[in-house]
Amino acid sequence: MEPRPSGGSKPAEPGPCLRSPGGACQGTSAYSLSSAGAEPGCSVAAVLPAGGCGERMGVPTPKQFCPILERPLISYTLQALERVCWIKDIVVAVTRENMEAMDGIIQRYQHKRISLVESGVTRHRSIFSGLKALAENRPNSKLSKPEVVIIHDAVRPFVEEDVLLKVVTAAKEHGAAGAVRPLVSTVISPSADGCLDHSLERARYKASEMPQAFLFDVIYEAYQQCSDYDLEFGTECLQLALKYCHTKAKLVEGSPDLWKVTYKRDLYAAESIIKERISQQICIVMGTKENEHVGLLEEMLKNELKQVNVTSRPLCHAGRDLQQIILEQCYNFVCVNVMNFDFQETQKLLGMLEESRLSILYPVVVVSGRFHASLGNPKPTCD
Amino acid sequence: MEPRPSGGSKPAEPGPCLRSPGGACQGTSAYSLSSAGAEPGCSVAAVLPAGGCGERMGVPTPKQFCPILERPLISYTLQALERVCWIKDIVVAVTRENMEAMDGIIQRYQHKRISLVESGVTRHRSIFSGLKALAENRPNSKLSKPEVVIIHDAVRPFVEEDVLLKVVTAAKEHGAAGAVRPLVSTVISPSADGCLDHSLERARYKASEMPQAFLFDVIYEAYQQCSDYDLEFGTECLQLALKYCHTKAKLVEGSPDLWKVTYKRDLYAAESIIKERISQQICIVMGTKENEHVGLLEEMLKNELKQVNVTSRPLCHAGRDLQQIILEQCYNFVCVNVMNFDFQETQKLLGMLEESRLSILYPVVVVSGRFHASLGNPKPTCD
Repeated sequence: MEPRPSGGSKPAEPGPCLRSPGGACQGTSAYSLSSAGAEPGCSVAAVLPAGGCGERMGVPTPKQFCPILERPLISYTLQALERVCWIKDIVVAVTRENMEAMDGIIQRYQHKRISLVESGVTRHRSIFSGLKALAENRPNSKLSKPEVVIIHDAVRPFVEEDVLLKVVTAAKEHGAAGAVRPLVSTVISPSADGCLDHSLERARYKASEMPQAFLFDVIYEAYQQCSDYDLEFGTECLQLALKYCHTKAKLVEGSPDLWKVTYKRDLYAAESIIKERISQQICIVMGTKENEHVGLLEEMLKNELKQVNVTSRPLCHAGRDLQQIILEQCYNFVCVNVMNFDFQETQKLLGMLEESRLSILYPVVVVSGRFHASLGNPKPTCD
Repeated sequence: MEPRPSGGSKPAEPGPCLRSPGGACQGTSAYSLSSAGAEPGCSVAAVLPAGGCGERMGVPTPKQFCPILERPLISYTLQALERVCWIKDIVVAVTRENMEAMDGIIQRYQHKRISLVESGVTRHRSIFSGLKALAENRPNSKLSKPEVVIIHDAVRPFVEEDVLLKVVTAAKEHGAAGAVRPLVSTVISPSADGCLDHSLERARYKASEMPQAFLFDVIYEAYQQCSDYDLEFGTECLQLALKYCHTKAKLVEGSPDLWKVTYKRDLYAAESIIKERISQQICIVMGTKENEHVGLLEEMLKNELKQVNVTSRPLCHAGRDLQQIILEQCYNFVCVNVMNFDFQETQKLLGMLEESRLSILYPVVVVSGRFHASLGNPKPTCD
């Protein structure tokens, strides 16, 4: 199927995906950008198989489309990949039935650099569809073959730039690389009668997680040589690269955040993690540059909320400061109104936030307050 | 170390652990009691190693003591075991430093049938401590050797009676049994240079979870024969029973709820699961037996809250009905006051709930309302 470019053709607008003043691109994610600046020095694309039906979740919606804080899980994952500037294309494989819904998600959340392809009936067939779209120079396709391809899961929303960089760099050197984690449970081999045959020694094995990365030619070659059995039942990409291209993947230790949203409890966990992350920044916004009173409020909040990063900033007319605040991944605002009888600054801030469409990505909280200057010693109170 | 009986010596009181009118014991858990009534037909005790330091959680508190809705995780697990009447003793192995804290938890949440022993420096040594306490007829010990012993984790709070019954029954027949789950991630074997040696075929392996159960003599014999290496680094109990007693454990498919609270995200998930479960029952309580108006309210709530089980019940003076409500695991009450000018029924209900100490276990919600009889057609409204 012809890859369908989506989202990328929209006009640039002051929406959720912004450019910082220095020109480096960053998404407005609630995640840290630990390796911002470092680049792998080769062309990179990502393939995201998202054709699963989510049978283990116990809910009718495929898990990649399950809402977290009203936004589909896959949108968080796309955002996490998008904010990494050096990933130039993201190919998402979805079922024919979900193609339209996926297009809607891309439009609504203004995802960029996404192309959709039709998924296959298994995960391997979906990945292969994505790789084919990157390999073939089709007419009207904006895609081109990358040097390295990342394979990630739609249901691992907390992938960070540093682990992406590590697997891509290792893949450049070794041909293949994948994130691994220590095993949580002991792995056992059952016998045919449902009894224990043997337990594996836990320390000698690892759980293979995502992301993985490959020299494109290696993994594409492996998929082209795959048997139908491999495409239906094959274990995973690292093993295919080993089996068909004799490429021994480099294993990279990943963080606990790489876990895969599999069960309903994982949706709960993901929601709580996102809530926690977006609660950790508060910005005090005021209308003028006279911030003598704001310092008091900032101190008060810092003392009360030990785990929270409190900053303050004047609210400029052009919204330049707001863009900077958004880049700093802040979704919580305390707006200080200096005038006595109106809430002009709050109204201005609300207008700017509405225009920025920030609340589409995460819930935005605005607390509006104003100063009472009394007894000659101005003390901030909330109205 | 001498096992320390805890909690069991307290006088019986109308606290969280109640007896139903029929005499069958049930804890007031927010879990379903799917196999209530069935018993394994042998003496059963449980050993719970709880000496871990929780290094993977990334928080200073050992994970078994981390609070969920202000109550330590281990208390949920103890409650889940306690509500199973046929488990006659529960031996918990904790570090010397946490002995006092654990005693406090047992007192506060009125746990019964618990004995504390000092844990060892590894999980296996802690389990061995627990087994020794059950094996040896020590003076002043209320413990006696059971036919079957369950080994469970302090950090798996959602264990249900049916899986406990299954592993115990299978252990009686096979000598050993353990719950297993399908693997979520592919398991790989790394080579010495940190590259992939090979991937395991996922369908041929299982994750070994808890609970496990053993004929006491089998697992005690295995631990007695264990080398120091096994006690320090040994994989798990099923393997020890196989290695030292040639007992091939029967594997029992467990539910997804058996997962182990390992990372911080698991605490979030556990909290959400508990919240969800305790939100699924509402009981409308009224002062008299004239429930003609209550039917209307019950219908309204049933229509509004599709996922919630709504029942109604008169509030008897003796509190007998309240005990029954608690046995039905209901923590949400709508109290309907029939008199026009006071909230006598609500006050009575609050008094009874306070006396029952139900809110120690889970947050209890009481909504107080009263009927307005107007226009000849009484319609319930909330005040």
